[in-house]
Amino acid sequence: MNANPMKLVTIICEAYALEPVKGLLRDVGAHGWTNFTVEGSGARGERTGEMKEYANVQVEVVLQPEAAATLLARLERELFPRYGMIAFEQDVRVIRSGKF
Amino acid sequence: MNANPMKLVTIICEAYALEPVKGLLRDVGAHGWTNFTVEGSGARGERTGEMKEYANVQVEVVLQPEAAATLLARLERELFPRYGMIAFEQDVRVIRSGKF
Amino acid sequence: MNANPMKLVTIICEAYALEPVKGLLRDVGAHGWTNFTVEGSGARGERTGEMKEYANVQVEVVLQPEAAATLLARLERELFPRYGMIAFEQDVRVIRSGKF
Repeated sequence: MNANPMKLVTIICEAYALEPVKGLLRDVGAHGWTNFTVEGSGARGERTGEMKEYANVQVEVVLQPEAAATLLARLERELFPRYGMIAFEQDVRVIRSGKF
Repeated sequence: MNANPMKLVTIICEAYALEPVKGLLRDVGAHGWTNFTVEGSGARGERTGEMKEYANVQVEVVLQPEAAATLLARLERELFPRYGMIAFEQDVRVIRSGKF
Repeated sequence: MNANPMKLVTIICEAYALEPVKGLLRDVGAHGWTNFTVEGSGARGERTGEMKEYANVQVEVVLQPEAAATLLARLERELFPRYGMIAFEQDVRVIRSGKF
């Protein structure tokens, strides 16, 4: 089992911030990520998932620790001033197939 | 980076428990959370997401440690006896924009 | 509160790997899990969630540490050679109602 300590970064943002977030993910060398629509409640009030443009999106990406730190720093500097969003980081033990 | 140790609490529950769960979230001072429909299998058998009323819902919320402990204790005391649900807590390192 | 150290295993896979994954979950004695469709990007390019058969699926299951280790080892040996997928493990503190 190729287990190694990695970081799972979760980003929850307004849907129209998804493309800028994906741009940063590519910049820091992310090989894969998932995103899915969520309902939620934040400082801007409750958001249903019914109108996709107004929904929140949850993005999850597994990264090497240095790439995760770069991503979080760039998110905070470049996107947090412009979009409603939150990000958090957790330790994960990853196994991965060659195909993913 | 305003990083500080926080707790991510995940609650998976039957859809009709969502409103009582949201009530507890407000009670413990949660500023934001997400929820999304999931398919799943638990003690009550497999649930598809096709009929929203019968689906399971996954709720995720980031809280200060004390608020997370209060939430989990109240979930266990007030909602676990009445609804099929599971909850778990993880450490997370959070950054957050002022807007969220 | 019946808190005990458990493992949250997250599996992200191509949708047609979901049934084999569920088979392994049953084999290792998982009592409950959730799965939901995600969009995403991996080694095989970007996948939207629009065509369910081509989407990725995220599966989350809470297990005892030994069962989690067995699941990850069997995933790697039996399914990773055949499907595009990634799996990761995290520590979680779980509370659970008798009904779930």
